[in-house]
Amino acid sequence: MNKNLINFQKINNRYEEIKGLLVDTPLLQSDEINSLFSSNIFFKAENLQKTGSFKFRGACSAVSSLSMEQIKSGVVCFSSGNHAQGIALAAKLHKTTAKIVMPKDAPKIKIQNTKKYGAKIVFYDRDIDDRESIGEQIAHDENRVLIKPFDNYDVILGQGTAALQAINNLQEKEKNSQQKFDAAIICTSGGGLAAGSGTVLKFHNSDCSLYTAEPHNWNDHEKSFELKERFTINSQKHGICDALENPIPGEITFPINVKNGFRGLSASENSVRIAMQMIMRNFNFIVEPSGAIGLACLLENENLLKDKNVLIILSGGNIDRTSYNNIISGR
Amino acid sequence: MNKNLINFQKINNRYEEIKGLLVDTPLLQSDEINSLFSSNIFFKAENLQKTGSFKFRGACSAVSSLSMEQIKSGVVCFSSGNHAQGIALAAKLHKTTAKIVMPKDAPKIKIQNTKKYGAKIVFYDRDIDDRESIGEQIAHDENRVLIKPFDNYDVILGQGTAALQAINNLQEKEKNSQQKFDAAIICTSGGGLAAGSGTVLKFHNSDCSLYTAEPHNWNDHEKSFELKERFTINSQKHGICDALENPIPGEITFPINVKNGFRGLSASENSVRIAMQMIMRNFNFIVEPSGAIGLACLLENENLLKDKNVLIILSGGNIDRTSYNNIISGR
Repeated sequence: MNKNLINFQKINNRYEEIKGLLVDTPLLQSDEINSLFSSNIFFKAENLQKTGSFKFRGACSAVSSLSMEQIKSGVVCFSSGNHAQGIALAAKLHKTTAKIVMPKDAPKIKIQNTKKYGAKIVFYDRDIDDRESIGEQIAHDENRVLIKPFDNYDVILGQGTAALQAINNLQEKEKNSQQKFDAAIICTSGGGLAAGSGTVLKFHNSDCSLYTAEPHNWNDHEKSFELKERFTINSQKHGICDALENPIPGEITFPINVKNGFRGLSASENSVRIAMQMIMRNFNFIVEPSGAIGLACLLENENLLKDKNVLIILSGGNIDRTSYNNIISGR
Repeated sequence: MNKNLINFQKINNRYEEIKGLLVDTPLLQSDEINSLFSSNIFFKAENLQKTGSFKFRGACSAVSSLSMEQIKSGVVCFSSGNHAQGIALAAKLHKTTAKIVMPKDAPKIKIQNTKKYGAKIVFYDRDIDDRESIGEQIAHDENRVLIKPFDNYDVILGQGTAALQAINNLQEKEKNSQQKFDAAIICTSGGGLAAGSGTVLKFHNSDCSLYTAEPHNWNDHEKSFELKERFTINSQKHGICDALENPIPGEITFPINVKNGFRGLSASENSVRIAMQMIMRNFNFIVEPSGAIGLACLLENENLLKDKNVLIILSGGNIDRTSYNNIISGR
């Protein structure tokens, strides 16, 4: 089988292998939100996934596919935080070691948790250093396998399991149910979740409309889909959506997302704030700003998806309470 | 089939009928909590159930079993809040009307939500009025079916679906897994969740140790199990666990819980506070004080359940953010 091919069957097979390690996160609905959009909005609550974000799926998939030899040498990755935590725990569960290259200004909670799972952290400066070359250097020097956060086939297979579970959740609700998602809004940093989950959603319903979700000033996917080529954001302005501040769609993920017909959406920080409040009000849980971007995009495009079954993946919940309260209250 | 009999088969059958309306809430674990107790603690997150608590299960089960005639006349119930919301939504989904008898000092969020689902509310004073006779009067005058919060066979069947899902969740984690819960801690107001879920847990593993969880000064189950008869708490002192302040075990539920070998645990408000913080730190979500009582009881009995698979049901999450913050910070 061609390793460099992402399809439903491969994602399904990988799911069977790793599902024992994953949380089957719930698919939640709210009357308030359904009424607001005159639609059936389903939230896949990946903030409740192990390590607090969907990134554990890809990390787990990648680490589970290593050879015995590779497990002996360990892994290395670079990440603003959620992939780091995912890799750290996946490495621990597979009894290997992990070294993580993280920005020195990553949210404290993400740094603490990464340490908690026993990984070693190497800090870098987001505005000066090139995290990719630091990661490659470590991989070379210590013979570790570099697991990139999105441009990695095994990671993409893992990220596809989020949509796979969501479809199972939807159909389990009724016996012999043939319900399908008519649309999905999926946040993108490098586009791994979109690539994996988009592939599953299109396989299940070829008419499913797919949208990426990004902050306005980090909308490289939105621009790239318009231009039909990978566009680089030059912004150095960091905002509240730390997990989505990747300047260019992935080399591997972008063609997959184009093939699946993704279109781009983006939203302001204020919409993200409102979305976070709405999620707390309806589900009583915290999502990090990046985790609320899908709903934020829908808030800015209220009439986009009427009378449809819409999947929104709440991608993560890793934010400390002080930062959360500050963001929610606009401080 | 004897209506007045609660067993696994009946709970399983009822689950097949209503599962399309329920959220399959996730079974969550935390390394921190597992290490603390040297055990495998599984949290069933019923704060993510529809209406924010497990009470929707029983309400849904009871309303789904009504005749066409009864659906026409509507239902009535009395509740401090979570059963009220459950009945209100279950009535709405089954296209019938609900009248709810609620204490006038019930948490605002519970009153608001009950109204939101379209139910009519009749307020009473917890220290003066007898909610049961108010409910019976309305049932008589308006020909409504009174659905009691725990002393109702259909409600108990519905509450059993929480443990049923938890066992499914546990076993789905690995193919052909024979994993079992060795113990469970289940909060009790009138004992409906304990009666339904305890029956399922004992059917699945007859060696499963079952514990009820209550606040120290509302520990009627703990006392009743010791005395081997239903004991009434005379305390009028209301605390933070509003959902658990029922003075005496149910008439129907108590013999079931005795038969299943339940023992009683109780905890202080301070332990509840610590448990709520621990849950927020590990899962990033809010549980109401009553929802954290199971973990609070384990905190006060740290060595009770070493090296076991322990189920704790986080029963609900209905608390407004101001009250939550006040309680968490001990105000």
